[in-house]
Amino acid sequence: MSRIITISRQYGSGGREIGKKLSEKLNIPFYDNALIEKAAEESGLIPAFFEDTERHAGNSLLYALYRGSQMDHFGMSVLSMEDNIYLAQSNVIRKVAEEGPCVIIGRCSDYILSDMKNVVSIFIHADLEFRKERAVRIDGVDPAKAESVVLTKDKRRQNYYNFHTDRKWGIAKNYSLCLDSGLCGIDRAVEVIYSYISGLD
Amino acid sequence: MSRIITISRQYGSGGREIGKKLSEKLNIPFYDNALIEKAAEESGLIPAFFEDTERHAGNSLLYALYRGSQMDHFGMSVLSMEDNIYLAQSNVIRKVAEEGPCVIIGRCSDYILSDMKNVVSIFIHADLEFRKERAVRIDGVDPAKAESVVLTKDKRRQNYYNFHTDRKWGIAKNYSLCLDSGLCGIDRAVEVIYSYISGLD
Repeated sequence: MSRIITISRQYGSGGREIGKKLSEKLNIPFYDNALIEKAAEESGLIPAFFEDTERHAGNSLLYALYRGSQMDHFGMSVLSMEDNIYLAQSNVIRKVAEEGPCVIIGRCSDYILSDMKNVVSIFIHADLEFRKERAVRIDGVDPAKAESVVLTKDKRRQNYYNFHTDRKWGIAKNYSLCLDSGLCGIDRAVEVIYSYISGLD
Repeated sequence: MSRIITISRQYGSGGREIGKKLSEKLNIPFYDNALIEKAAEESGLIPAFFEDTERHAGNSLLYALYRGSQMDHFGMSVLSMEDNIYLAQSNVIRKVAEEGPCVIIGRCSDYILSDMKNVVSIFIHADLEFRKERAVRIDGVDPAKAESVVLTKDKRRQNYYNFHTDRKWGIAKNYSLCLDSGLCGIDRAVEVIYSYISGLD
């Protein structure tokens, strides 16, 4: 049960809430976007992440940029601020994962940690109505704009993942477990993930 | 718990065995490829399936063929034998699903039954080594050819699914639950699916 659990999720599917409840049930740390962003800011944006992950990162566009063209002919870095933020956040994700079992939400964490043996990667999705209702009730989204907000947020998450990895977001075979939280509900989703990891050594 | 459970699966992932054990645990009928093929043969290949599923099938190429071009200008059917077999098997799948809770393996059953409210669709996958080992041990595949056999069988399943539906095989959001049986093992996979459907009314 000493596992790192990463959770990717469609917007409004309750992935963050499921992850929080799971971390409480397992009594392990919980890292969401806000915590990872804060830690990355405080780290000084040093991209030490790639020092020990050459093999892993070998196929990504970002890695190619980093290796092949990190400096242009004036000696300036060609990595954008967004790239540097991604590298710093990746560094934070590897650091917390190496400290021990935890739950990490989003930020390509399943991909960043895919060379670690004890990672269980989860993908949470749900039907549009379930996600619109949560967007309105929990995030205060204007009901008239809920559908557009949900779909746009998903598009951004998908683009972020597909840009930073050599995988496609939401392809079942890339995750240990994927589930529809709209059908089973938030609390049952926690139980199902718990059941899955209970069987692992 | 009165659910129809469909199981799609990568070759060698143990999806059929998981489905069989689940049906025994739930004490409901189990239909695999062999049973569906046999029932379809006995049915006389009558494509009654589409009579009540116009809306559902509206996007599929096959349905377009069936509706728009069933007869060519000589009055001959343009549906191939393969298409007729698919229609007859679809008919069998709908018939057994309407009879009550059961487990159905493969044959696009998740798609064929997607207009029914009480369907839980599962997708089982596993890493290549796990699947090669099962192909050799259970299906008697030549170890030297195991990788090629596994990948070719998957390609066929994917092509079959993508041709007969308007979906892509193995996209997480199209299934209620997807899991990696190579990581958790066959018996745990049964428990995880059981946990998922236990939460449904």
